[in-house]
Amino acid sequence: MNIQYRVLSRLRDLGPLSRAQLSDELEMPRPRLVAELDRMIASGTILEAGPAASRGGRRSTLVRLDPELRFAAVDLGASSIDIEITDGRLAAVASYSESADIRQGPGPVLDRVSELLRKLGAQSRGARLDTIGIGLPGPVSFRDGVSVSPPIMPGWDRFPVRSTLTSEHGCPVVVDNDVNLMALGEHHGGVARSVDNLLFVKIGSGIGCGVQVHGQIYRGSEGSAGDIGHIQVEAAGLPCSCGNTGCLEAHFGGVALARDATAAARAGRSEALAGRLAAHGAVTAADVAQCAAGGDLVCLSLVRDGGHRVGQVLTHLVSLMNPSMIVIGGGLAGLGHLLLAEIRSVVYKRSPPLATGNLAIVLSELGPRAGVVGAALLASELHYGRQL
Amino acid sequence: MNIQYRVLSRLRDLGPLSRAQLSDELEMPRPRLVAELDRMIASGTILEAGPAASRGGRRSTLVRLDPELRFAAVDLGASSIDIEITDGRLAAVASYSESADIRQGPGPVLDRVSELLRKLGAQSRGARLDTIGIGLPGPVSFRDGVSVSPPIMPGWDRFPVRSTLTSEHGCPVVVDNDVNLMALGEHHGGVARSVDNLLFVKIGSGIGCGVQVHGQIYRGSEGSAGDIGHIQVEAAGLPCSCGNTGCLEAHFGGVALARDATAAARAGRSEALAGRLAAHGAVTAADVAQCAAGGDLVCLSLVRDGGHRVGQVLTHLVSLMNPSMIVIGGGLAGLGHLLLAEIRSVVYKRSPPLATGNLAIVLSELGPRAGVVGAALLASELHYGRQL
Repeated sequence: MNIQYRVLSRLRDLGPLSRAQLSDELEMPRPRLVAELDRMIASGTILEAGPAASRGGRRSTLVRLDPELRFAAVDLGASSIDIEITDGRLAAVASYSESADIRQGPGPVLDRVSELLRKLGAQSRGARLDTIGIGLPGPVSFRDGVSVSPPIMPGWDRFPVRSTLTSEHGCPVVVDNDVNLMALGEHHGGVARSVDNLLFVKIGSGIGCGVQVHGQIYRGSEGSAGDIGHIQVEAAGLPCSCGNTGCLEAHFGGVALARDATAAARAGRSEALAGRLAAHGAVTAADVAQCAAGGDLVCLSLVRDGGHRVGQVLTHLVSLMNPSMIVIGGGLAGLGHLLLAEIRSVVYKRSPPLATGNLAIVLSELGPRAGVVGAALLASELHYGRQL
Repeated sequence: MNIQYRVLSRLRDLGPLSRAQLSDELEMPRPRLVAELDRMIASGTILEAGPAASRGGRRSTLVRLDPELRFAAVDLGASSIDIEITDGRLAAVASYSESADIRQGPGPVLDRVSELLRKLGAQSRGARLDTIGIGLPGPVSFRDGVSVSPPIMPGWDRFPVRSTLTSEHGCPVVVDNDVNLMALGEHHGGVARSVDNLLFVKIGSGIGCGVQVHGQIYRGSEGSAGDIGHIQVEAAGLPCSCGNTGCLEAHFGGVALARDATAAARAGRSEALAGRLAAHGAVTAADVAQCAAGGDLVCLSLVRDGGHRVGQVLTHLVSLMNPSMIVIGGGLAGLGHLLLAEIRSVVYKRSPPLATGNLAIVLSELGPRAGVVGAALLASELHYGRQL
């Protein structure tokens, strides 16, 4: 890996460092490093930042990232836009979320994203964004920067997301699947720090999985790795939006849960849900979570059934991948420990003992921020010169 | 990667090369390469081999591997030992196979392996083996060189396979799971050349999978990646040797097929099988293959059912991994196109269209040699200085 990337990513992760500290960190001979740092200072890539604490010898000078660096992180969900503007160390300097409908198509949705980026960018410094990272809720061709065959995103197939945003904002853009970004985020700044082999399972409106092997996101041959929402869990199951039947997503996830909860409310099987339906005209997955927390038996059973199905799919993935951690995230991670307990019980019971001996199954630490943290990280990797 | 490894692996894969050709191949400045080659010649690591064909300018001298190099490749199956001794280019100079029973335990089995290695080594040159690669039919801790928790291998758990063979033969040894070696073999010298993301499915006595991502074998956190034989395919299914019920291996694979075929013969449901049972006292998976080829309906149906189950598991793995190729190998690959057709029909029907658009599902090209080719390759990688 090139020296410049190694220096910049250390300054991102550790903050200002002296030449001596960098030399230790990078295990690189001091003269070679110093020459490179001098070049980077001369070109304005890094700045000097006053004297370091003494280590006994001659005082060393700290170097740091340009404090004016700005990365934009965008997490497009099926029904939401989350944006953070960060500095070079990935600390948020502005953030904003609103609901949105991905089915409006790439034109209106990306126009809105650009508008928000301009507003937030202006708030956070004044003008230029250095690099943008954006996640989409469907398969992405990482190389081409376009979404491909996304089942829930009419109009997005092969839409040039990267080039659209690049010409709009005049900066490099990196596009990835939203769940891959969540996995990246959780690995960089969440519960999966230093975990090399990781599955991040997002349970939101739909269900997807980010696969990280040997410390790197694995995207598959066509960018569809981790697309587990359409694995068949029921031979003669419910119809799915993808055209098949019995898919995991057709039986669990935000959309399925709202459908089942509405049916239960209408059929009078749950007083709590019926009350919410009467009050708001609809019930959502969030209602199920709250009613389950309140002890409603129908809601408890919906969550347990869903967790059981997710667990069954995960046993297959654990047999194949032998990961050291599975992180459960996405909107329905709000179902929390009830969901987690059910998933754990199935996976620990049914997977090969060797594969589960040291396997941790945990809830996301970053929660709804996992996607933007990953998007900011990926933007910084591109900006700092890592080959992506 | 170090220069020495890059030179040696090119000479392995391409044969003798001139300095000019190597310089082109490695995209390395000629003076630096020539200095390294001179060092390697002086130390006897490579040899000069006469003048190269003229390329118009000054004649260049060919360099080549030491023709005395010998790698030993061992593929231990549940019921077989396959061995090849190869030269530095991985061409077989001696090979031998015999049936064996892995359940005899590591003492007797490895004693026999060592005896065969000494005999074959003596035939093939005289004395020394340079490096040994060996595959075991169960999970392996690649780092430690021991097998771990192998369900069908009593006595093998944590047995120090690497150090036992090292002290017996006085040379480096590398130990891996047999299916990983088959995937490596098929990638190096079979149908999966230049395929980066690959699943190699071995259907033998049991069923396992080698996972190759980004061009490298993925072994998982505990070495159990690809252990798909114990994925549950039937909720209230047959008991499995692992202690669970409904595992893929309990329903298909050599052991299951022999059991089902015997039952069909005894029940008089298949004349062809009954004839073989009467003639030989037992029927095997090979009998099923032959009777299916002869049109026996019970055998055709056994193979189809098995292929269907394998296909169902593969749809899950395809959704997760989005590989560009699936290779079907192992003893039951002899069931051939009937099995392949059934697997293909399930995978192509049930997997996400994006994941199957460019997905090839093919039979192993190396057949029973896939394991030893992979073992020889891995031995050479270790010997030539690649960090494994």
